Amino acid sequence: MTPILSKSEAAELIVSARIRKGLTWEAIAEEIGAPVVWTTAALLGQHPMTQEQADRVCRLLDLDSSVAESLQRQPMRGSDPEVLSDPTIYRFVEALKVYGPALKELIHEKFGDGIMSAINFRVDVSRREDPDGDRVVVTFDGKFLDYRW
Amino acid sequence: MTPILSKSEAAELIVSARIRKGLTWEAIAEEIGAPVVWTTAALLGQHPMTQEQADRVCRLLDLDSSVAESLQRQPMRGSDPEVLSDPTIYRFVEALKVYGPALKELIHEKFGDGIMSAINFRVDVSRREDPDGDRVVVTFDGKFLDYRW
Amino acid sequence: MTPILSKSEAAELIVSARIRKGLTWEAIAEEIGAPVVWTTAALLGQHPMTQEQADRVCRLLDLDSSVAESLQRQPMRGSDPEVLSDPTIYRFVEALKVYGPALKELIHEKFGDGIMSAINFRVDVSRREDPDGDRVVVTFDGKFLDYRW
Amino acid sequence: MTPILSKSEAAELIVSARIRKGLTWEAIAEEIGAPVVWTTAALLGQHPMTQEQADRVCRLLDLDSSVAESLQRQPMRGSDPEVLSDPTIYRFVEALKVYGPALKELIHEKFGDGIMSAINFRVDVSRREDPDGDRVVVTFDGKFLDYRW
Amino acid sequence: MTPILSKSEAAELIVSARIRKGLTWEAIAEEIGAPVVWTTAALLGQHPMTQEQADRVCRLLDLDSSVAESLQRQPMRGSDPEVLSDPTIYRFVEALKVYGPALKELIHEKFGDGIMSAINFRVDVSRREDPDGDRVVVTFDGKFLDYRW
Amino acid sequence: MTPILSKSEAAELIVSARIRKGLTWEAIAEEIGAPVVWTTAALLGQHPMTQEQADRVCRLLDLDSSVAESLQRQPMRGSDPEVLSDPTIYRFVEALKVYGPALKELIHEKFGDGIMSAINFRVDVSRREDPDGDRVVVTFDGKFLDYRW
Amino acid sequence: MTPILSKSEAAELIVSARIRKGLTWEAIAEEIGAPVVWTTAALLGQHPMTQEQADRVCRLLDLDSSVAESLQRQPMRGSDPEVLSDPTIYRFVEALKVYGPALKELIHEKFGDGIMSAINFRVDVSRREDPDGDRVVVTFDGKFLDYRW
Amino acid sequence: MTPILSKSEAAELIVSARIRKGLTWEAIAEEIGAPVVWTTAALLGQHPMTQEQADRVCRLLDLDSSVAESLQRQPMRGSDPEVLSDPTIYRFVEALKVYGPALKELIHEKFGDGIMSAINFRVDVSRREDPDGDRVVVTFDGKFLDYRW
Amino acid sequence: MTPILSKSEAAELIVSARIRKGLTWEAIAEEIGAPVVWTTAALLGQHPMTQEQADRVCRLLDLDSSVAESLQRQPMRGSDPEVLSDPTIYRFVEALKVYGPALKELIHEKFGDGIMSAINFRVDVSRREDPDGDRVVVTFDGKFLDYRW
Amino acid sequence: MTPILSKSEAAELIVSARIRKGLTWEAIAEEIGAPVVWTTAALLGQHPMTQEQADRVCRLLDLDSSVAESLQRQPMRGSDPEVLSDPTIYRFVEALKVYGPALKELIHEKFGDGIMSAINFRVDVSRREDPDGDRVVVTFDGKFLDYRW
Repeated sequence: MTPILSKSEAAELIVSARIRKGLTWEAIAEEIGAPVVWTTAALLGQHPMTQEQADRVCRLLDLDSSVAESLQRQPMRGSDPEVLSDPTIYRFVEALKVYGPALKELIHEKFGDGIMSAINFRVDVSRREDPDGDRVVVTFDGKFLDYRW
Repeated sequence: MTPILSKSEAAELIVSARIRKGLTWEAIAEEIGAPVVWTTAALLGQHPMTQEQADRVCRLLDLDSSVAESLQRQPMRGSDPEVLSDPTIYRFVEALKVYGPALKELIHEKFGDGIMSAINFRVDVSRREDPDGDRVVVTFDGKFLDYRW
Repeated sequence: MTPILSKSEAAELIVSARIRKGLTWEAIAEEIGAPVVWTTAALLGQHPMTQEQADRVCRLLDLDSSVAESLQRQPMRGSDPEVLSDPTIYRFVEALKVYGPALKELIHEKFGDGIMSAINFRVDVSRREDPDGDRVVVTFDGKFLDYRW
Repeated sequence: MTPILSKSEAAELIVSARIRKGLTWEAIAEEIGAPVVWTTAALLGQHPMTQEQADRVCRLLDLDSSVAESLQRQPMRGSDPEVLSDPTIYRFVEALKVYGPALKELIHEKFGDGIMSAINFRVDVSRREDPDGDRVVVTFDGKFLDYRW
Repeated sequence: MTPILSKSEAAELIVSARIRKGLTWEAIAEEIGAPVVWTTAALLGQHPMTQEQADRVCRLLDLDSSVAESLQRQPMRGSDPEVLSDPTIYRFVEALKVYGPALKELIHEKFGDGIMSAINFRVDVSRREDPDGDRVVVTFDGKFLDYRW
Repeated sequence: MTPILSKSEAAELIVSARIRKGLTWEAIAEEIGAPVVWTTAALLGQHPMTQEQADRVCRLLDLDSSVAESLQRQPMRGSDPEVLSDPTIYRFVEALKVYGPALKELIHEKFGDGIMSAINFRVDVSRREDPDGDRVVVTFDGKFLDYRW
Repeated sequence: MTPILSKSEAAELIVSARIRKGLTWEAIAEEIGAPVVWTTAALLGQHPMTQEQADRVCRLLDLDSSVAESLQRQPMRGSDPEVLSDPTIYRFVEALKVYGPALKELIHEKFGDGIMSAINFRVDVSRREDPDGDRVVVTFDGKFLDYRW
Repeated sequence: MTPILSKSEAAELIVSARIRKGLTWEAIAEEIGAPVVWTTAALLGQHPMTQEQADRVCRLLDLDSSVAESLQRQPMRGSDPEVLSDPTIYRFVEALKVYGPALKELIHEKFGDGIMSAINFRVDVSRREDPDGDRVVVTFDGKFLDYRW
Repeated sequence: MTPILSKSEAAELIVSARIRKGLTWEAIAEEIGAPVVWTTAALLGQHPMTQEQADRVCRLLDLDSSVAESLQRQPMRGSDPEVLSDPTIYRFVEALKVYGPALKELIHEKFGDGIMSAINFRVDVSRREDPDGDRVVVTFDGKFLDYRW
Repeated sequence: MTPILSKSEAAELIVSARIRKGLTWEAIAEEIGAPVVWTTAALLGQHPMTQEQADRVCRLLDLDSSVAESLQRQPMRGSDPEVLSDPTIYRFVEALKVYGPALKELIHEKFGDGIMSAINFRVDVSRREDPDGDRVVVTFDGKFLDYRW
């Protein structure tokens, strides 16, 4: 009668093992053949994995089956709100405070009344070389959903 | 002794004139030769315009010089926090709640300890056709800044 | 150079005219041939109307064209958060506090990992007679969206 | 002198046992002959069970009597407010922000001044097939209570 | 095309007229034959009045028909949250912080699982003489509603 | 060098023992000859007990002297604010939001400028039979204190 | 049908007239024969004045009778919470954060279980000369009220 | 490698030992020859003690050297904000809400633009006999600091 | 009977006149012979000016005496909290979140238990040339105050 | 399968060892040849260290390798918000509330539209002797970043 490991306990073990083994998130994502942002988010507790994905990750990181069991659970999503004030994450929040209303105007101009789905959705992050300093390029790509009664 | 029109009063007049004249944000941006997200954000009060940009916008929209004067002022940035709960804008906030910690991990993996600048920064929004429903593609593109003492 | 009437100013005028003329929301919805919850929400400022819908409402309520102009604008959605503490609305919030996690479990059980769309969505409210006291029946009906990368 | 298991500890054990045994909430509800939303909410800690219901659930899930004891306690209701930002639950909150004032207007139009009870109340969730994508249909059904001095 | 006076504007006029005419709330309540707490709450904007009640109040206070019109509107209930920090009102809030969980225990002990209705409900306030200093006696009296599916 | 049991740890043990022994709060109050609301509040951690009261309660519930020691401590009062959103307690909060300003007006009308004490104060809860459904009657009874410099 | 001047509007006029006439709060308090902290608080809207006090203040400051009428109204007390972050006021708040729990311990040690009344209460502020720099001395003096059922 | 006891763990042990030994805060303060409010605040974790003070307190209360070590640490000051809603402490907060702006006006009138220091500062609490009920007298005494560039 | 212009109304007029006349804050500070950060803060409403300073500023900016009157008033300090989320100001807040506890440790190491005064205090901002990009250098310089009873 | 020590656990051990060994932060910084504010912030969990830095610190403080491992992890930055109400840290926050808008004006005047980087950034704290009392001098020094699309 022991409960399944919580998603945050599992994430803490995965992060620790990853660092000790010197593996990148990229390498873990390749191992399971899934996109790297999705894989990282899933291992941090934001998406459920299939049994096969969970098992492969645990084998790669030498973690036992209690972690694999936790990785397959349906998550309660939405990070701790305090996380949003970390400087690396806050810059995205700041960009939304400054550009959010403009994005709304332009989405309505290009598509009509509706939203970008955050469910039928993917994100990617890449590094673009630039002589003035390399750039972080993050792409949000979601299906348009129009208000439809 | 009348104060300069506030940025939000100017924005309200610009939005009203734009609708009545049937002009797109895209068309206004072309008129002043600036990127469309930047232009929309500036007209909603988030960036100062040059005198020439402000004058051209006001001429296009038949607004008087008090609006142009306001558009050149240095803004106090950061939208009203209530705006973030509009569904179209909230989907981006939700994506950050779900993917923010993963983006942080991957930025550190690709670049080391630092952040994506929200100042040396541009955003773009486009429509990508897709047989399963067209997609909203938003790109955040900022210079990487490493923590440097 | 007068700005378009705000959505809340327009709503205040519509509500006042509706009461003075003794018209129901149902009657207004029939006039424009649209569902009654959608129509009420739109007139309270949560959805844009077509020009024809806006004009018919204004004619029915003897309101001038500045109201019709406002009704066609794209709204900034999301009611004033203080509204959620009105007792009639709060009971729905309380139901979500008590039953929200159970609804989440059952949506995942019946559909897999995903959400009920609040965009491709309709609500209906009806009165069901009951010898122990009539009942308010509210149906939330939204397309299922699965998390899909 | 050990205190009764808290409702959240009991819920964690129930959820873990349910997953490991591969049982659905539906199956547990059938076992105790109660509606499925009610049963799920009760097992997550929002309603007290009778001794018989609690015992049958624990027998089905191979949990010991300390869990059954906890299930019979009177709960302190109302979920953790952070739960409301999980995307699957948040869509209902968003629907209330957009449609809450309209629902209030229509309840008053159909019933007079009063509220839908959240106590003499039931909820149901079902899946409706639809060629454009199946739909989540959630029904809130509460007795009307009029303001009566 | 002027909107109906808001409930708070009407209340401000009623309070001002009441003071200038030297009338008590008790006297106004008697004039319309309604309980005094209900009447005061209604005039402060928390309950709708019938046309006859509204007209009698306005005649008594020499207020014009725009106030009577406002008094008949359905209110958005729930006072400004800042009001709860006024010392006279705060003492009731403090009593709930100290005694709320005890009241919950005893309501469940005397009635089972359920609540005191705040809708089928009345409040009374009276002055009880006491040699050690007179006492404020406030009675909350609401129908018990048991959780019933 | 072990610290005294905290008030909430003691309360958890008392509640557990009370349920397991099948005792009512009423019976415990009778045992110590004190009013039932006061006794319940004290055992939940909101009032200090005398040594004799604490000892009698612990003897009745078979709890050891560490609980009795805790019951005599001076409390830090004021419940966890999350408790106020439990539906049974929230109805009282809602009543204050709706009727608080009216109670303030009537206290001033009957007594002048001052407050009902929440210190020289008692509360009682009773069940009143009623053919339309029994009623919860809660009486707040506090000494009037006038603003006096 | 104009409402009585609000307390904050009256305060703004009083403060302005006081500065323009070069009068101290001390002088105004002497004029009406009342303590200076009480008088200042009353004129800033925190206590009702008698008609005679209000009239004398208005005569002294050349303000008309609408101000005097407002000064006699029963206030909704409790300053704007933003006021507490002004540095001169914040130092008192900080002292409570640092010394509040110690004051609570010592009040209970000297008096038993109870509180210092903030109603049967007076405050005084004075300047004490000191060779190391003069000192602000503020005395809170309230009747002890013991918890008494 | 065990960390130093936290200030709150030390305080919990001190309070427990003080009660079990039947010592007053006054007696502890006399033992170390320091003012009683200062001593109580220091033992509750708001000021660092010298080694000698810490050792004497621990000898008096039969606490071991880990407590004395903790008492000498530099504190992170500022009590838990929930503490401010305890009724005994809240009355001081309420007094600041009602009288804070008046104290600010009078400090500026008596001293010019500046503040009362909360650092070069002492507080005292005493009991003053009064035939109408004894009074709690708390004196805040801080050096005046004028705004000086 | 018109109230003195509020500090924020005066600031709005000063900022507008400064821009229209093309004057720098530096130039205004020189005109009155005061440090530039102090002068800017005073004109934005955070410090009172002497009559002579206020008059010179108004002459320079062609503003009338109602502005000069407002500039001499004692301010209620502390900016609107929303201002702290403007990106230019937020970077300082972020630096405090990251380095605040380190600054506290080092102030105590260098000075003992106490604080940097924010009253006997000056700030300066300068531009330092740097081949890698010029730098903003802001110096906070306040008298050390030790905790002294 | 034990997770890496959290940054706050490591900080607690470092602070305890530093005090017990009687070492200053200055001495630790010298040992690793890094600036003292940076070193203190890193050891409190706000910056990652290199393996060599971490090992030297742990050798100096006799801490084992689990602490060194934690010190090399990438931090989630941003202190606990409650820390900002400690008086020593709060004075900096207060300075920003009073001078933040003035700093913004002057940064824009000296540099144009942009910000001081909090990433390419250093802070220093020093003690300056002064006959009127020594002064805390804190310098914020960050690269200017202009808004550049």
